[in-house]
Amino acid sequence: MRNFVFQNKTKIIFGRDTEEKVGKEIKRLGKQKVLFHYGGGSIKRFGLYDKVVKHLKQEGIEFVELGGVKPNPSLRLVKEGINLCEKEKVDFILAVGGGSVIDSSKAIAAGVPYEGDVWDFYDNKAQIKEALPLGVILTLPAAGSEASDSSVITNEERKLKRGTGSPLIRPTFSILNPEITFTLPPYQTAAGITDMMAHIMERYFTQERNVDLTDHMCEAVLKTIIKNAPLVLENPEDYNARAEIMWAGTLAHNGLLDTGRLGDWGTHMIEHELSALYDLTHGAGLAIIFPAWIRYVYKAYPEKMLRFFHNVFDVEAVFDDPHYMIEEGLKRLKNFYRSIGMPVSLKDAGIKDNRFEEMAEKCTVFGPVSNFVKLEKSDVVEIYKLAAE
Amino acid sequence: MRNFVFQNKTKIIFGRDTEEKVGKEIKRLGKQKVLFHYGGGSIKRFGLYDKVVKHLKQEGIEFVELGGVKPNPSLRLVKEGINLCEKEKVDFILAVGGGSVIDSSKAIAAGVPYEGDVWDFYDNKAQIKEALPLGVILTLPAAGSEASDSSVITNEERKLKRGTGSPLIRPTFSILNPEITFTLPPYQTAAGITDMMAHIMERYFTQERNVDLTDHMCEAVLKTIIKNAPLVLENPEDYNARAEIMWAGTLAHNGLLDTGRLGDWGTHMIEHELSALYDLTHGAGLAIIFPAWIRYVYKAYPEKMLRFFHNVFDVEAVFDDPHYMIEEGLKRLKNFYRSIGMPVSLKDAGIKDNRFEEMAEKCTVFGPVSNFVKLEKSDVVEIYKLAAE
Repeated sequence: MRNFVFQNKTKIIFGRDTEEKVGKEIKRLGKQKVLFHYGGGSIKRFGLYDKVVKHLKQEGIEFVELGGVKPNPSLRLVKEGINLCEKEKVDFILAVGGGSVIDSSKAIAAGVPYEGDVWDFYDNKAQIKEALPLGVILTLPAAGSEASDSSVITNEERKLKRGTGSPLIRPTFSILNPEITFTLPPYQTAAGITDMMAHIMERYFTQERNVDLTDHMCEAVLKTIIKNAPLVLENPEDYNARAEIMWAGTLAHNGLLDTGRLGDWGTHMIEHELSALYDLTHGAGLAIIFPAWIRYVYKAYPEKMLRFFHNVFDVEAVFDDPHYMIEEGLKRLKNFYRSIGMPVSLKDAGIKDNRFEEMAEKCTVFGPVSNFVKLEKSDVVEIYKLAAE
Repeated sequence: MRNFVFQNKTKIIFGRDTEEKVGKEIKRLGKQKVLFHYGGGSIKRFGLYDKVVKHLKQEGIEFVELGGVKPNPSLRLVKEGINLCEKEKVDFILAVGGGSVIDSSKAIAAGVPYEGDVWDFYDNKAQIKEALPLGVILTLPAAGSEASDSSVITNEERKLKRGTGSPLIRPTFSILNPEITFTLPPYQTAAGITDMMAHIMERYFTQERNVDLTDHMCEAVLKTIIKNAPLVLENPEDYNARAEIMWAGTLAHNGLLDTGRLGDWGTHMIEHELSALYDLTHGAGLAIIFPAWIRYVYKAYPEKMLRFFHNVFDVEAVFDDPHYMIEEGLKRLKNFYRSIGMPVSLKDAGIKDNRFEEMAEKCTVFGPVSNFVKLEKSDVVEIYKLAAE
């Protein structure tokens, strides 16, 4: 087990009607002027927009708005947000949405007090030293950005999708009301589930020994997700199942499941190139890449994969036939993804052209990816090939 | 699942040699004058005292000392600490020890800015509105006080042991180095293990339905403790097993495993009267009371106990004979306690007199205890009787 520092200050406000607390929470922080940042029409369609406006006004909090965040949030809109905050003297950012809105808000929060170009943080050219505080009302359990210290932004001009991180961009509070997720379409629900599972698997697949407590907790959260996923897809208004999924999505990515080891993050890096190029949903991309990644790397430390498939997917422990366990496990993982409507190959996702070299080149531009085993460009090409059909 | 708010700001600094960071951490907080609070001679005997002094001095941090904290920390010493802090204009408290030292430090932290008698907080007469910040170097994984918002103090004059809680007394940082626990005697190690398990079980035994994620996480931490307990007792210098136990003790009581439900806490209340009267180690008292409590209350919601014994103690799921599962489960729980050297009855602990009425009276002075089922004085008497042999 490695030494670690764990601290997560985000105040999680969880449950029915909790969005009504947004005005009071911001007022308690003594903030005057809010940037209300959101995506498309769904928050207006389902009444959340009006509620937020009402509760901000009730507490006498001034705000300016910036909507229009899209999946794979764009650097262009981030810059627009930074300009707006400077012009309007905004001192707090309220993100109402999923991971894209939150990540865009984090970028704006870091960009406002920074003299240079905000992309510097994503291009490894500068570190975040200061940021505006931000709060969240979560509408899509998936990215875990509501309690994480990271943000991923897409530079549309350069066709690059890059991440940055700092405790300074961790939300001050996050409001999670499972009822808000009742109206999510099945595909988005399923892509979110795949994303949160991937966040845990990225942390679980490590060659670090003696991380038993963290591994058991990873398995606990994964099993809960796998059990509740079909329930929310069958009955989108099952409050308790929606609540399990929503809380799981936060715990998957709040840092707790990192403790004592380095995560892998290879699959995320390999997937990022897919969704940057094809505008594929991130979760769907992960369902395509993860089985291929496991098949390519498992021989480096098969025992960890055997534990995973046995403890999480109930594959029988056949000690003298690990090959059976891997194959059976991969079958069950793919079947699970398929059962919730995710693609498990590039072909499933309708991607037929072969730009593997180009994607692998971009993916490894800062050096090899993955920690489980280091993957060079040629390895990444092989993983894309395994993911083809 | 109930609505909840979860926030825990404590910075956990975990691993080898982390006590060397104590001076830097306090300096970063801009504090000038520290109360260095500790227990008996063990921190002097094993060199930790000298290390702390060295690292405080290295950073130019002034300090005054107050040693002498005993198990079941006393109100008298707390008051001495408060006077010392006022006299010396202390602005930060450093607790170096286990739960007793930390709880004593929390009481001092809350008492310094308070005009009235600090016991008011423990006697339900006042709420903590302000407190000095405190930091911890943990020497005994057990009470979980290093990241909790609670404190238990013994009023020796009135023979009362009472708790209070507030986010204001949660430590700012806690340093956890598993190596520091190598020298713990087996009995203290085992009592600590029993205590942390009880913290999880108190949270697990609820009639709240649909708390699946939290339940799975409780089971994850419990299984890790049960697996690693014999390892640390067999080889006290097994770093990795000590690390699993130490981190488990913190997670058992940092609030995470409460999410979505009310904990029970009946066993703690019933045990407190035992250790207040007999000066028994808290962990040993819990090993005596918990099996008796389970036997007395399980019929109110047997399914939860069946899940516990099946998922945590691997009792076979015999669906048509729950009685077998309860009996087999209780046997395994007691065998586990015995295997690590804990008593499982009052007789085992050498307590032969019968002061059950008196203890039950004090235990229920604020009303019935337990949430799983409400226990009146007469119920508590019955539980003491079940715990007798």
